[in-house]
Amino acid sequence: MNRRRRVYEGKGKILYEGPEPGTLIQFFKDDAAEPGITGEVIDGKGVLNNRISEYVFSHLNAIGIPTHFIRRLNMREQLVREVEMIPLVLTVRNIAAGSLSRRLGIEEGTPLPRSIVEFSLKSDELKNPLVTEEHITAFGWAMPPELDDMVALAIRINDFLSGLFLGAGMQLVDFKIECGRLFEGDMMRIILADEISPDSCRLIDLQTRQRMDRDARGGAAPNAHSEIARRLGIMNENEPARAAGPVLVK
Amino acid sequence: MNRRRRVYEGKGKILYEGPEPGTLIQFFKDDAAEPGITGEVIDGKGVLNNRISEYVFSHLNAIGIPTHFIRRLNMREQLVREVEMIPLVLTVRNIAAGSLSRRLGIEEGTPLPRSIVEFSLKSDELKNPLVTEEHITAFGWAMPPELDDMVALAIRINDFLSGLFLGAGMQLVDFKIECGRLFEGDMMRIILADEISPDSCRLIDLQTRQRMDRDARGGAAPNAHSEIARRLGIMNENEPARAAGPVLVK
Repeated sequence: MNRRRRVYEGKGKILYEGPEPGTLIQFFKDDAAEPGITGEVIDGKGVLNNRISEYVFSHLNAIGIPTHFIRRLNMREQLVREVEMIPLVLTVRNIAAGSLSRRLGIEEGTPLPRSIVEFSLKSDELKNPLVTEEHITAFGWAMPPELDDMVALAIRINDFLSGLFLGAGMQLVDFKIECGRLFEGDMMRIILADEISPDSCRLIDLQTRQRMDRDARGGAAPNAHSEIARRLGIMNENEPARAAGPVLVK
Repeated sequence: MNRRRRVYEGKGKILYEGPEPGTLIQFFKDDAAEPGITGEVIDGKGVLNNRISEYVFSHLNAIGIPTHFIRRLNMREQLVREVEMIPLVLTVRNIAAGSLSRRLGIEEGTPLPRSIVEFSLKSDELKNPLVTEEHITAFGWAMPPELDDMVALAIRINDFLSGLFLGAGMQLVDFKIECGRLFEGDMMRIILADEISPDSCRLIDLQTRQRMDRDARGGAAPNAHSEIARRLGIMNENEPARAAGPVLVK
C-alpha cells in the first residue's frame, strides 16, 4: 500500500492515486476527525466510517445525487472519482448546535425556523471559519453558480439523510459535506466528495433525546459509530448493508 | 435634558424622543465604541463624532443616499428620523484588517480583490458575530430584498467615503453602518441610520501608511478624531464644515 502515491492526507482519511486515471483510493483512518481534537483514536472507526459512507453514497448515487463514490474495495478503502476539491465545507443545520449556538446565542437543541446551509473555509489552521458568498466569490474559492449547485445538493442530501436517520430512530441535527468539480470532456459538474459518516453528522436518539455521539455526561461515546452502523443495518464486513441498492461502477 | 424619554442607549450614543412624532434626538457620548472596550472615555470625542457624522450624512443626503439625519442641534445632539432599526451591522471592507484578517488568515493591509460587504448580528453580548444571508432570512432579521437594498446603499456609501477620505489624504480600509426601515404611509424604505465617524471607520494616512486610529506603537491614538475632523475641514463649533452642502430639513 505504501508504494502507492499519496495524494492527500487529512485527519480522518488518506487519498492515494487510483488504479486508473481519474480515480483515487480513499483510505479511512481511525483518528478522530473533529477539528481541534488530535491524537484521539477510536479503534475500528475507520472501518465503520468506510461502511457507513459507502451505504450513504451508494444510496445517493441511486437517487441521482452525484457523488465521487464508485465502490468499496476492502475494510478501509473505497474507489472514488478524482475531483478538484472546492476548499469549502458546507454545514446543513436542522437544529441549533455547536458553533451556531455559540456564535448566535441560540440554545442547543432549538429547532431552526428552517434548514440553514452554511459555508466554511476548509482550513485546520483557521478552524474552518464561517464565510459568506461575498468572501467566497471575492477570493475565488467558488463561483456563484457553483454555490447554487452546492446548496441544491446539500438540500437534497439533507432530505435524504433526514429520512434515512428518522427511519432508524435518529434525528439529524446537522451534517457537513465537501464537494468537488468533476471534469468530463468539456463539461464540469459539482459532485459530492469526501465522506458522510458519524464523524460528519450530529444525531439525536429519538427515544432518549440524547446526542448519539456523546455519552450521558457529554463525553465522547466510544460506541457511537458501531451503534449508528447497527441501526442502519450495517453489521459487519461480510453481511451486506440493508437495502444497499446498486453500486454504480459506470 | 433628562426629562426627555430615553429610547435607547448604546456605547457611543443615546437616543431620546424627538420634538415631533417620527423624530428622535441622537446624543453623542465620549465613551469608546469599540466592542469589548468599555470604560474608556476620550474627551470631546462625542462632539467631534457629532460634527463628522453630520458632515458625512448631510453630503450623503445631498447625493441621494437616504439617511436618518435631519440636522445637527448642538454640540452633542442631532435631530434624526425615527426608523425601525434592522439588527444587523454591515461592514464594507476594501483592505484586509481586524476580524477578516484574523478569521481568514489574510495579512492586515492586504488589498482585497474587490470590496466585500459583511453582515453581523448586532449584539454586544455575542460580539457582533458574522452572519450569512441564510441566518438572516431564517431568523427573520431582514428579508432578501432588504438585504439587497442594504448592500446597494453600502456600496454607494463606500464609493462616496473612499473619495472623500482620499481627497483628505486618507485611505478607507473599512467601515461599519447600520440601517433602519423608514415607514412613510404605505411605503417602507431602507435608509442609513446610526452614525459614520472615526469610531466606525478604519483609515490609513496616505503619507505615512500608518493607521489613523492607532499611534506608532499600535495603541489608541488620542487625537485621531480631531485630526480626521481637521483634515475634513471640520474645525470647531462655530466654523462651518468645508463645503457642507445643504442640510435637508424636509
